[in-house]
Amino acid sequence: MTALPPSPRTTIRRKPDRGHYDATSIHAIVDAAFVCQIAFNSAGSVHCLPTACWRDGDHLYIHGANNSRLINALLGGECSVCITHVDGLVLARSAFHHSMNFRSVVIYGQFAAVDHADDKARAMASFLEHVSPGRNAHVRPASPAELAGTRILRLALHEAAAKIRNWGVEDSAEDMSIPVWAGVVPLGRQAGVPVAETGCADFPLPSLPAALQKEALP
Amino acid sequence: MTALPPSPRTTIRRKPDRGHYDATSIHAIVDAAFVCQIAFNSAGSVHCLPTACWRDGDHLYIHGANNSRLINALLGGECSVCITHVDGLVLARSAFHHSMNFRSVVIYGQFAAVDHADDKARAMASFLEHVSPGRNAHVRPASPAELAGTRILRLALHEAAAKIRNWGVEDSAEDMSIPVWAGVVPLGRQAGVPVAETGCADFPLPSLPAALQKEALP
Repeated sequence: MTALPPSPRTTIRRKPDRGHYDATSIHAIVDAAFVCQIAFNSAGSVHCLPTACWRDGDHLYIHGANNSRLINALLGGECSVCITHVDGLVLARSAFHHSMNFRSVVIYGQFAAVDHADDKARAMASFLEHVSPGRNAHVRPASPAELAGTRILRLALHEAAAKIRNWGVEDSAEDMSIPVWAGVVPLGRQAGVPVAETGCADFPLPSLPAALQKEALP
Repeated sequence: MTALPPSPRTTIRRKPDRGHYDATSIHAIVDAAFVCQIAFNSAGSVHCLPTACWRDGDHLYIHGANNSRLINALLGGECSVCITHVDGLVLARSAFHHSMNFRSVVIYGQFAAVDHADDKARAMASFLEHVSPGRNAHVRPASPAELAGTRILRLALHEAAAKIRNWGVEDSAEDMSIPVWAGVVPLGRQAGVPVAETGCADFPLPSLPAALQKEALP
């Protein structure tokens, strides 16, 4: 993905210093996500639904069952996809200046189907690689029937923008002497102790994605 | 909030055993969120944008600047709001049966403005209470000018549904002997070591919301 100039839809007008339009920033936020939220219109109404997602190259991928309403609606029109990570609570001396640190991406476009069996198999392998690197070598791959029952869609990451806040408190000068703790409480995702299925406790533990490890906090 | 029967829009048809329509389930998922994603139509396009949120009684609240495009668009039409928490990676013996544990809520309706100064002050106090219980007593409250520059909207939690998956692996019988670790890797949010602003290190640390503490994992 080459960084493209922002479109009228992706140009961040409120607090534009938080906007990022380069592929590196956008990809990193997408890669840290297990789910995205998709806005689309269907049956006379706007909808916002969550679904699992992963990235391969310049595209965001999702999957669903063949007869899924979400999948069919997305193939019929434009959508907007949002991914949000909350990274910290920004606690100020004044109520008004409280904030949050976060990373978000918003993408516009229309999903296209990935229908060739080889492409589907490759996409599903990259999904599993996203969830647990190296795991494809150890599990039973999807059968032709399982692949045939699954629809895979992808959305180009060309009309997309990231928004990032990752700094401290911005209190007004006149509030600086208020005697209260002010600062940032970092938030991160944490993987807990894996819970093995019966009979699996002696096998090597699964690997976890790098994005998850990066968020572990002191 | 009384539990209402699901509407045509909120009825979960795919894997209906994951659907919950009671206020307790819906409120708990909303209360664990710092941000929501909002789908709406504006300027001929569908949008999905993240924003901070909190609950008070039967309503989801958001806020923004007076001249915010998001706020103005939401006052002009219906929307759909989605909150998603990813609680675990469900790692199966077959690629196809991998899954995620999650809690999500989808809400439909139209936001209404909370414009009376007393109501706005009360709403902003409940927002801060959501982020750090008890903090209102220690910070400078919003001034009349700060409140006047802020718009607060609320959305009834009446047309809403929750979807929850919180169990183990569902492999097929014929895959049970595949020699690979299978099980659930729990995911939770973790608060890291608070980073104090200059001069604040000796004040008592802020309290954190119960939802955040519940997600701490072994």
